Parts: sequence; C-alpha cells; structure tokens
Amino acid sequence: MGGPGQDRQPSWEVVAKEHAAKQLNNIPAEWRLPRAKLDQLSGVGTADEGRLIRLQAAKKSGLLSERELDITENHTARDLLPKLAAGELSSVEVTTSCLTEIFFNEAIERAKEADQYLEKNGKVRGPLHGLPISMKDSFVVKGRYASVGYVEYLRQPIPEDESALVKLLQDAGAVLYCKTNVPQTMMTADSENNIFSRTLNPHHTALNAGGSTGGEGALLAFRGSPLGVGTDIAGSIRIPSVCCGVYGFKPTADRVPFAGQNSCPFPRNHLPGIIPAAGPMANTLADLRLFMDIVFAQGPWRYDGTAIDVPWRSLPAKAEGEKLVIGVAPEDEEFKLHPPVKRTIENAAKKLEAAGHTIVHLPADPTRSMALGGRLAFAFFGLEGAPSNEQMEAEFGEPLVQSLAVGVHPYSAANPPPLAAEWGGAKKVAEWHRLRAEYRDSWRRAWIEHGLDVVLAPGATSTAVRHDAFGVPVYTASWNVADYPACIIPYGCSSKELDPTAMKGHAAFDADYTPELQDGAPCSIQVITPTFKDEECLHAASIIDKVLNGA
Amino acid sequence: MGGPGQDRQPSWEVVAKEHAAKQLNNIPAEWRLPRAKLDQLSGVGTADEGRLIRLQAAKKSGLLSERELDITENHTARDLLPKLAAGELSSVEVTTSCLTEIFFNEAIERAKEADQYLEKNGKVRGPLHGLPISMKDSFVVKGRYASVGYVEYLRQPIPEDESALVKLLQDAGAVLYCKTNVPQTMMTADSENNIFSRTLNPHHTALNAGGSTGGEGALLAFRGSPLGVGTDIAGSIRIPSVCCGVYGFKPTADRVPFAGQNSCPFPRNHLPGIIPAAGPMANTLADLRLFMDIVFAQGPWRYDGTAIDVPWRSLPAKAEGEKLVIGVAPEDEEFKLHPPVKRTIENAAKKLEAAGHTIVHLPADPTRSMALGGRLAFAFFGLEGAPSNEQMEAEFGEPLVQSLAVGVHPYSAANPPPLAAEWGGAKKVAEWHRLRAEYRDSWRRAWIEHGLDVVLAPGATSTAVRHDAFGVPVYTASWNVADYPACIIPYGCSSKELDPTAMKGHAAFDADYTPELQDGAPCSIQVITPTFKDEECLHAASIIDKVLNGA
Repeated sequence: MGGPGQDRQPSWEVVAKEHAAKQLNNIPAEWRLPRAKLDQLSGVGTADEGRLIRLQAAKKSGLLSERELDITENHTARDLLPKLAAGELSSVEVTTSCLTEIFFNEAIERAKEADQYLEKNGKVRGPLHGLPISMKDSFVVKGRYASVGYVEYLRQPIPEDESALVKLLQDAGAVLYCKTNVPQTMMTADSENNIFSRTLNPHHTALNAGGSTGGEGALLAFRGSPLGVGTDIAGSIRIPSVCCGVYGFKPTADRVPFAGQNSCPFPRNHLPGIIPAAGPMANTLADLRLFMDIVFAQGPWRYDGTAIDVPWRSLPAKAEGEKLVIGVAPEDEEFKLHPPVKRTIENAAKKLEAAGHTIVHLPADPTRSMALGGRLAFAFFGLEGAPSNEQMEAEFGEPLVQSLAVGVHPYSAANPPPLAAEWGGAKKVAEWHRLRAEYRDSWRRAWIEHGLDVVLAPGATSTAVRHDAFGVPVYTASWNVADYPACIIPYGCSSKELDPTAMKGHAAFDADYTPELQDGAPCSIQVITPTFKDEECLHAASIIDKVLNGA
Repeated sequence: MGGPGQDRQPSWEVVAKEHAAKQLNNIPAEWRLPRAKLDQLSGVGTADEGRLIRLQAAKKSGLLSERELDITENHTARDLLPKLAAGELSSVEVTTSCLTEIFFNEAIERAKEADQYLEKNGKVRGPLHGLPISMKDSFVVKGRYASVGYVEYLRQPIPEDESALVKLLQDAGAVLYCKTNVPQTMMTADSENNIFSRTLNPHHTALNAGGSTGGEGALLAFRGSPLGVGTDIAGSIRIPSVCCGVYGFKPTADRVPFAGQNSCPFPRNHLPGIIPAAGPMANTLADLRLFMDIVFAQGPWRYDGTAIDVPWRSLPAKAEGEKLVIGVAPEDEEFKLHPPVKRTIENAAKKLEAAGHTIVHLPADPTRSMALGGRLAFAFFGLEGAPSNEQMEAEFGEPLVQSLAVGVHPYSAANPPPLAAEWGGAKKVAEWHRLRAEYRDSWRRAWIEHGLDVVLAPGATSTAVRHDAFGVPVYTASWNVADYPACIIPYGCSSKELDPTAMKGHAAFDADYTPELQDGAPCSIQVITPTFKDEECLHAASIIDKVLNGA
C-alpha cells in the first residue's frame, strides 16, 4: 500500500468506529429518530419488546407517509416496476443494523435520472427501470467499500471496479441504494462483525437474523427493500430467509454471475469444490422469478466468464391443476427438528396431499443424509486447514465475533471428519470430490426411483434462535454439496400454543427451542430440485406456495 | 483378488498375448484373409503401400457383397436407422489394430432380436433401433474386458457392470458390436499398448491414427462403423478425427454421461479441474448431431448423476442464408502449423468469406494463446506429481509404449511450468483453478469484443504424422482447459504438390512435415463455441460444413 501513516496505523477499533459513524451520516437527519421514540417503537419494557414487525414499528414511526407505507408494505418488486419508487427507508431499519454502505442520495439522483430518461425518451432504461435493489455487502459497487465486515479492508483504497452482477443489474436499469450486513468471514448464521455490529431480527430483536446474508433478510422482512441479492455456499441466502420469513432462492452454482465480489482473505486458496451461488431474496416468489428473468435476459456470461451460458428455459405453461410428486426428506436422527419446524413440514405435506399432490415419505438413507451432507460441506471448508481461533485473530488483526469463536461443526466421536487429517492436500481434494460424487449420485437414484419432481425439506432444524446459537446448517449445506437449487418458502409461525414443548439443542453450540422466545418467529419450508433444474424448482415452488399461502 | 496362481502369476507378456489371441478368435474364420492377400490389398512394394483407403482395400477384399459395400460406403448412421444393418466387418480392419473387444456374434444375435421385436410389435425398440455403434475400450460393457490396454486389468474379473452411456445407448436400441483401441494410459496421440498393439491409420499405415480414441478414428475412416463414441480430455476425440479424416465432437464436459468408464490406475487421485467429455465420432456431421439428439432424448442425468440435466436446446430454424461471425484463431508462434494445415485454415476462411460470412482475424494475445492453454492443460495433468518413466513402468508392471516414453511437454526455458514445483498440492490446485479462470475469461472477452458466433482454428499443428511423433496437442487441449465445445470437420488433404515445402518439428518429440509421407493425409478444421453452446457449435459447424464440403 505504501500510504502515509504506515508506522502509526490506527487500531482496528478506531478504523471500525470511524466507518460506522460515516455510515450513520449517510442517513438524512430527518429520517433519524430520537432514542425515546425508538424505545417506544421497539416496545421496550412490554411483552412484545423487540418484535418490531408485530409492533408495526415502521408504520408508527411517522417517517413514512400513507402513500409511502402503501408502497413499502403492499407492493412487490413486480408491482413497483411500472410505478418506480426509490429511497424510502427509515432509521428504524438501521436499528436492526442491517445496512453496511448507504448511498440513498446517489440512489435518489439516479432514480431522478431514470424518471427524466423516461420522460425524454418515452421508454424505460431497461427491464428493471428505476427499481431499487439492495445487495449483500460482498458485491462491489464503484466508489463504495465492500469491507464484508473486515476492518483491514477499510485501510485499503475504495474499490473502483464493480462486481459482474452489479454491472448487469445497473445495465438493466436497477437503482442500487444500499448494501447489507454480513458476519465476519461470512461463514456463520449470525450477521455480526466489528464494523457494523450485529443484524437483529425485526420479528424479534432477541433472535438472530441469520447469515451470511442476514442484512438482506432483516431489511426485506421490514419491507425496506423490494428485492435483495445474496450469496450461498452453505445456506447464506436460505438461513436468513428462514430466520426472517422471506422468500430466498439458491440457484445452481454458476447460473447467476458471481464474479468480482469481495471475500474474507482467509482461507486464501479457494480450492475447487462447493461453488457459492448468487441469488435473490424477496417478499414474494414472483419477485424471485423476476430476478432470474432479468438476469437471464441480460445474459450472465456476457458479464462473467464463469457463468454458464445456458438460457433460462421456458417451461410449458402451468396446466390448470398440475400435480407434483413431492418427496418429503426424513428428519435426520443426528439433527433433530425443533417442534415448530416438524409441525410445519408435516402440515405442508398434509395440505399438499389434500390438494391432490403425491407425497412420498423418503426413507432414511445414510448415503444421502443431511448429516453426511453437512459433514461433506464442513470437510470442504476445512480442506485448506482448520486454523485455531488465535491464528484467525492474528490473521485478521481484530477479535473474532462470538458465533465464529464457538467453532460450530458437525462431527462427533461416532461421526468423525470424512477425510483423514494426515493426508496431503491434493489427496484430500481428490477424495472429497469422490465422496461428493457418491452423495450426488445417491440423491439422483432417489429422484429416479421415486419419480420425484421436487423434495420438500426443512430449511434448518430451527427457525430464528437466540444470538450465536444457530448450530450446524446441515439442512441447507447438503444442497450446496449436491449443487441442487433450493427455494425457501415462508409458511406459518412458531407458536407457543401449538408447539408448547421445549427442546434442548443437541450440542453445546446448538440452540434450545424455547416456546416463549420463539413465539411468532417465522416458519418455512425448502423446495429442492436436481442440478440445473432451477426452472422446475421455481415452477414447483409457485404451485406449492399457492397451496400453502394462497399466493 | 485372492484367485488361484497368485504366487506363480503369468508375466505381462503371456497375459497380453493370450488375450490378443482370444480377440482374433472372435473374428469369424470366413472373414479372415491370408497374408498374401493382405499384402496385395495393402499395396506392399508399391508407391501406395499402406494407403488402404486410396487402394480401396475393403472393396477389393472380396469379403463384402455389393450390397454390403453400398451400406458401409454410402450410408450414414442416420440413413441406416430405417434400414438396420449390423456386423459387416472384415479382418482388414483388424490389420489396422483398431479393435479391442470383439463381440460380433452377440451383436448379430441382438440385431436379430431387434428385427423380431419390430416384426412382432410393429414398433422399434428405441430411437437407435438396431444401429451398430462402436465404442472406445474405456466404456464398460457387461461380460467384456475394459482393459484400456493395461495388462493388469486382464488379471482381474471380467466386468459385470456397465458404463452409464452403454446402458443409455442400449436402452435406445443400439447394437454394440466391438470396442476400439486406445494408447497405454490414454494420454498420447498414438493408440498403442502392449495388448492390442498399435492402431494404424488406414489412409497410410505409416502414419498415426491419433489418440486416445484412435481405434474409432481408424474404424470410422475405414467405414467399419457408422457411429463411434470417444472421450476427450486433451483432444482424444479430436486428434484421431484430425488424423483419420472423420467428424468428431467434444461437447462441454458433463453433458454426455461419462460415468462408469475404466481408466488407467495412474495417477490415482483424479483431482478436479479439466473434466473429460464423452462424445461422438462419425463420417458426417448429421451423425454427430444424431448422437447428441438420442443421448438427450434418453436423459443423461437419468443414467449419471454427474451429467448436467440441461436439455438439448432447439435453436431457431436455420434461416436461409444465415451468416456467421467467425473468429479465426491466430497461428501460435510457439506451435507453428505445418504447411497443409496453414493452407487448409486459410482456404476455409477465404471460402467462408466468399460465401458471405464475416471473418475476424483474431489478434495474437498471450492471455488466451494455444501455448498457454497447452501449458495449463499439462500443469493440470501434472498436479498429482510427474512420475519418471521408471516409476510408471514399476507401477504398471509392463514396459511403456514409445509415444509415452518420449515425454511430450509444452515447456521451455522461456516458458516454464506455470505452477511452482515446491508448492504443496492444495496450493497448486487452487492456483491452477485461478489461472484457468483467467484463461476462460480472456476468451469470453474476445467473444464479446468481436461479437463472435464461433472460432475457427486448426485441430493440431499437423495432420497425421509418423508414429510416436505427434507432439504437444495444444490446439485441442486449450479448449479442454476452457471447457468449450469443439468440432472437427474434415476438409481436404495434405498434398505434396500444394504443400511442397518440408518443415522441421520444433522439439525433439515433434514431427517434421514431409510432403511425400503425408501426401493424401486428411486435413481438417476445428469449430469452437463457448461453454454449453454445444447446440450453437453443431449448428454453426453444419453451416460451415456445407460451405466447405457441400454436405
């Protein structure tokens, strides 16, 4: 770098604090609320303390006009496209620490330009003309940090380049207006870091918002964005969708442009194996589909050489009353479901069966279990060596956040890591790929044997849980190992009346189920199809969503 | 294994010889020719000695009736489908050592069954009903060895399972009747091994048939098969197509089922990186397309979990007079083209331009050169360590064939291997993938910048050359590194009149160009499209084939 002050470099605390302060300054003064008002909106001291959505905190803040509230609460991205609105955000969102970089003023300028362009030329700039889109902090926007919660990056120059997907969405006419919070290393389900602090769940600020795309989850649940973009290598789109009760879609890897994002510099090597996928999060399934339509209309490969240039396939028009064959994944004996999750899956299966769909209860099979998938995922993440917490802190130059420090893992004495520790790196890589191929082929056989259209599974053992206790995300990570597209559909809520029995977490870092704490937390299901059947996944998800949510 | 005779195991020579003798016994006695007749047909002592195709050796053998000759010489696989013929093969093919496992009798039985089925049921068994198909020896057919020229495999039980693609083609109604020869390790362009000896080029037995799918190349050129199947990780479908003057298509990896093949046991690990592709070889472009149509109609993923389940896309019907933008790859300064190859590419470009297509002469660019592609390919093949010849012989338990022993490589003092020898395996793997991504993205930018439909390039620096001298296959291996589909189209011949100037090979293991030796050897071009644009590749190839060959 060679910049000034190398020998009297400010500490990580100073750098982080200065950046957080700058961020706050990017929120217009008239959108900020005094502490007393915030406490009142958050229900401090009441039974609903922290349940911002139940408390209608956004509505009662007085920051939004009736018209603005109508836009944010009642319109989907698809609805907004012909109407165009941008920039309605209140500091209430910021109390959940869901944002990282904030550029409302530039966004409003850009939205005005879009308006002027339309007026002058009589046509839109692109298929996303004027639509505000929020993106995970890892996406690089010119002139904005992409620190991914890593203080060292704030000491480096502000990026001048842009991620492939940022270019694509802007070319399509989208207005980017903020980036959203992530966990340190982006490898935990609690979106906390030393710069932007912890993203809280707007359904209940005592619960986690999920990670690593946790800021998007919270922002969307709060109706602060019509459409968000995340990434997912073990559940990072789907876990926040589960926790915050929004729709989230992890496509097959390399279908949506991923290139040019920032990531934590550790581990360094980036071995081939599980490829992270970029994908949409939204408040409706139709908006997930909108995102995929737009991305494919622009041509992913035109922006990113690693994006596979297969067009989005038009499926035959949905026949009235089309019926699916739905395989229900069994509960994994090692990773038991919390009662509301179990009830949700059972209810969904019953409701779908009643609607005429065929339900196949898949038998437990150790060659395709979620536990095995989880172990293969963690074996991949550990291929380049598993540093100690001390080594990580020395490498980062800042303390680890709690959810990272606890060292979540899917191993036990009975189920050790699948790769021998003493093997050399290349042998481990090769053996991992062999085991992964076996896992994928076992799922293929299940699909063929049972004639499945989709698999229905939980997105996690739990819904949102107390902070730093989400446990091992085997129910999402398994589908990254298989590289199968997977969609989270919100469905119902955790209920202290319907799910009255508490349950202990199975490991020290697992959350207990506590009926009172989780009451009202969103529940959901996951819909999965084989690799590259992204079209079929969203198609089936829309049929299922209609049955479950009447959407 | 634990079989009998472990302590007095026969030598590799005995095992190989016994198997070769068994193979010969699978050819009906009435199809065998006496040595004197073979010498006469091969033109021994004449100027055309060894030029079996020019000499019309098959026709003059007397083994085939007029009707049979009409079938083998004048019918494509597509023509044969409604007619059904199987089993016409003569020992003349065997004089080129193009076959490994021979099961004519079973094939004729199966063809009869197909006839009976059709008669009884009034419908065909599948879209390939009764069509004879030959396959590279690596494909496993139940009850047949898949020794891939490795003597040790003959000491093991005969396989009871089958490759995914074997199952698929048989389900489609195909009649498999033989497997075809490959080189030891399948990693050289001379299809020689210690069991089945060396495949000779029927255009001139003093020239190589190419490898590793060399047996298919020779068999197809001799019209001994209407449709063959090969595999390609550095050119193994395309090099024999170049050498033998047949059409060959390397699809994007993982589109055609590859699983369940046998391979040389060394190297052991099989690191992720360049994925080999299975694909068709034939005497017409339409037959390549036929193969892809059938494979996709059966559903690749139904047979192989590693096959990507993307349907074969129907492109819009070819507009009358559709014009292409064709980028002509520059000659690589490090890997100079032999005169007939240079003339062929120049002629093809001129002819295509005259037909109204746009020709873009791509500038040389070191970030996407064939030399760099070749070095990346060889760096990948060396990721698991580069054993010495002595180590390989000790591992194999049999001597190395000459083309393997010479140790072909693309490195020089000025252009050393791209990965530091002292790096650990995992670091090498990661760095290789980074370099590969850069290479692929450079080609992507070329495509976008010039608005290309396809790239036109030579398939090799040479056409068929003297045995054990094919050199480094950078013009094919580069497209394996990029994972771009690539199709070989035969076009013209080497000519001592048109290409009178001899040329020295640039390295010790490279062939010289010798006008007299290569006179009449087939020439060809290669047509390339980006990853997953297999449909566009064959579509453009058919337009180009029509211009060049009037097909």
